[in-house]
Amino acid sequence: MADPHANAPGPIAANSVAAALRRACADDWAAYVNHAFVRRLADGTLATASYKHFLIQDYLFLRQFARAWALAAYKASDLREMRAASQTVDALINQELQLHVETCAGWGISEDAMAATPEARANMAYTRFVLETGLAGDLLDLLTALAPCVIGYAEIGARLAADPDTVWDGNPYREWLELYSGDAFQEVGRGACAQLDRIAQARIGGDVTQSPRWAELCRIFDQATRLEIGFWDMGLHRET
Amino acid sequence: MADPHANAPGPIAANSVAAALRRACADDWAAYVNHAFVRRLADGTLATASYKHFLIQDYLFLRQFARAWALAAYKASDLREMRAASQTVDALINQELQLHVETCAGWGISEDAMAATPEARANMAYTRFVLETGLAGDLLDLLTALAPCVIGYAEIGARLAADPDTVWDGNPYREWLELYSGDAFQEVGRGACAQLDRIAQARIGGDVTQSPRWAELCRIFDQATRLEIGFWDMGLHRET
Amino acid sequence: MADPHANAPGPIAANSVAAALRRACADDWAAYVNHAFVRRLADGTLATASYKHFLIQDYLFLRQFARAWALAAYKASDLREMRAASQTVDALINQELQLHVETCAGWGISEDAMAATPEARANMAYTRFVLETGLAGDLLDLLTALAPCVIGYAEIGARLAADPDTVWDGNPYREWLELYSGDAFQEVGRGACAQLDRIAQARIGGDVTQSPRWAELCRIFDQATRLEIGFWDMGLHRET
Amino acid sequence: MADPHANAPGPIAANSVAAALRRACADDWAAYVNHAFVRRLADGTLATASYKHFLIQDYLFLRQFARAWALAAYKASDLREMRAASQTVDALINQELQLHVETCAGWGISEDAMAATPEARANMAYTRFVLETGLAGDLLDLLTALAPCVIGYAEIGARLAADPDTVWDGNPYREWLELYSGDAFQEVGRGACAQLDRIAQARIGGDVTQSPRWAELCRIFDQATRLEIGFWDMGLHRET
Repeated sequence: MADPHANAPGPIAANSVAAALRRACADDWAAYVNHAFVRRLADGTLATASYKHFLIQDYLFLRQFARAWALAAYKASDLREMRAASQTVDALINQELQLHVETCAGWGISEDAMAATPEARANMAYTRFVLETGLAGDLLDLLTALAPCVIGYAEIGARLAADPDTVWDGNPYREWLELYSGDAFQEVGRGACAQLDRIAQARIGGDVTQSPRWAELCRIFDQATRLEIGFWDMGLHRET
Repeated sequence: MADPHANAPGPIAANSVAAALRRACADDWAAYVNHAFVRRLADGTLATASYKHFLIQDYLFLRQFARAWALAAYKASDLREMRAASQTVDALINQELQLHVETCAGWGISEDAMAATPEARANMAYTRFVLETGLAGDLLDLLTALAPCVIGYAEIGARLAADPDTVWDGNPYREWLELYSGDAFQEVGRGACAQLDRIAQARIGGDVTQSPRWAELCRIFDQATRLEIGFWDMGLHRET
Repeated sequence: MADPHANAPGPIAANSVAAALRRACADDWAAYVNHAFVRRLADGTLATASYKHFLIQDYLFLRQFARAWALAAYKASDLREMRAASQTVDALINQELQLHVETCAGWGISEDAMAATPEARANMAYTRFVLETGLAGDLLDLLTALAPCVIGYAEIGARLAADPDTVWDGNPYREWLELYSGDAFQEVGRGACAQLDRIAQARIGGDVTQSPRWAELCRIFDQATRLEIGFWDMGLHRET
Repeated sequence: MADPHANAPGPIAANSVAAALRRACADDWAAYVNHAFVRRLADGTLATASYKHFLIQDYLFLRQFARAWALAAYKASDLREMRAASQTVDALINQELQLHVETCAGWGISEDAMAATPEARANMAYTRFVLETGLAGDLLDLLTALAPCVIGYAEIGARLAADPDTVWDGNPYREWLELYSGDAFQEVGRGACAQLDRIAQARIGGDVTQSPRWAELCRIFDQATRLEIGFWDMGLHRET
């Protein structure tokens, strides 16, 4: 099967498990990484109200996501994987969340106000799907459910950085673009790909696409990708 | 606080925990039990396509719900509660699911086709919220998340049975009305209320509405009620 | 590797996953199925005090084991597996537990007294290992941890039934021997073997002993087998 | 009820939940904090072989304990508690574990050799009890199961520091004594007491000893204390 994303810039290495998962849901992946919300971030035309709505929901999302990485630390039987997962929890709650808090503070929105905002339905659907997949399955199921977020945001950042149409000067979302296209986040994305490869080898081995688990792993990855699309939709249309 | 539902027919006893939870989210509860989807079931005007869409999603829902009751059996430390939860699993997978399978078979929709239908987003949001709430919290958190479904459907059945506007003769949804207003399901609803009271006493005791946990229990119950509204919306508008 | 148990009577079919797991821990398996506690049940020489101590601890064990099978029902993504696990919960709490209650009642030990007995350390080590293995891993990890108990007791029952040295007439433990050598329990053992084969195929496929997971599955099975030995020791020596 | 430990030095504040739990299992607590293993550490007479056996098992223990704190981070619904739990994971896997690795390296025992050592039964019983209690219950159940370890080691350290019979000069276990009596570990102990108070207030409130949950919390705390005694026994007698 041809992979229209095979040459996309970003963290996904050619022969990685992530590359095979992306290939298996190429249309949904395209809808995710090229979503109108992303294009309007890139050209600076996104409505401020949509961005604020998105950022507050993303704050709530990241809190759940930190819980999911803590769950990954619990599920890891190996110290290396525990350390990797635990560092991600730390980065999420002490760095990425803080950026959202600071940006929102600039608009006069306090962290308490953010924390008190009800989670949008698309937000709940995504985070609880990831958490429950991880609780019901093993570490590989959990990392597969987590992959579209961290790997996808890094790919989106890299795509926008490589895209001549991306507007940098005067773009109100330049900070967002710089965060996700920056070296630090690209490294996070590559780390997540490498971890997924390691755990897939440890739990399946060989050509993972030949495993009877492969169809289920593709389903999990695709489901999470579709829930990412739902998250962009939620931001764009300010859905609650 | 006045409770506009205090005299509603159905399984919720006056001084039960369920009555207090319902009172705490009275508006969302009203929107749930009086939803347009319910009213059109009652007068027989619901579009067949909406009902089919709902029933297939409800089939997928019940499979997840059976998992949630199995989780309740795991979380119960007491044999009586394990038996109650285990009997619910049995009733869901051997009776309620079978009714859906038979009804759909009458339309030429096989169980395999139902099982292969992608879960609608509103469906995932609800089921994964319930499961994850139960995994993160204790048995009381889980039963509170489960309550709006089983107790609410019994109240809806009892309300429709008591409502002179309900159309019985020639109503294509008469089987649905009879199932949820029937004695067997009313007994299931009363049993769920009684179990919630028992576990709330065991984990909190006294006047549970004075507990520091009460706000969180209300939030869980309200969230699940709003996700039930989302489920009716999904059926009515055939959302995917 | 030669398997000294290859021709043992009982539920383990020649080419099953259970046969391969047993082969991988042949010495521990031998120590388990031929334990002095078992031999003294077979010839009727076990001290009554040891049997009572064992039976009360086994009552507490079965409650935890029923929780573990409820967890398996939660972890199963397939209706067939949910039904199988759910029926096991039902059999454990409504049949096997009842037999223990009746036997102990014959000695004047009430169910309340049994339930109030502190769990012996060997009991806790085993049950919590099984439960936690299942929570951390997937359904295959859980079923592998559960296998030595249900499959092993069926093999022990079959071995004793085939053994000319087994004393039946006047053996005070004849009821125990009949239960585990009987057709019903042999069928339960064969069912557990078949389920393990199905789930191993679904999660690994092909020759499961060639999977990178195989070493870990052997470790889980061996660990549970050693904890079974600890349980016999606990009964024999009335350890708390 | 008089509390023979009420004036013990260490992290447990007079009116804390930890003080009430300790009071409820005063005899088991005394057997834990005054265990022969502890006394022989304090006077330097513990057999080196027992200490090595203990330290390797403690290395395996701390890996499971880090998983339990990762689980606490998952179970925390509040950022402050997530940070506290996540920092504990970090301290365990990056500091406390490293000390064990360095000490054992001094004896020519590599980390790989430690990791490959089978877990002693007493070790498994304790760690899996804590993990499973946390998975079945809520954050308060989990923190109660975790408390005897972190709070107890700090109390032991403080008791030994205050005890004129403790031998410091030439004691081969001086490093151990300094670690657990030192300011840093005392602060960890006080932090764990304060967190337990916070979560008990959030989940129960008021006088927690009047809650219907209190008996179960005492049971969990006592069980974990008895499993700590079992861990010292295991070290002293080099049990496997």
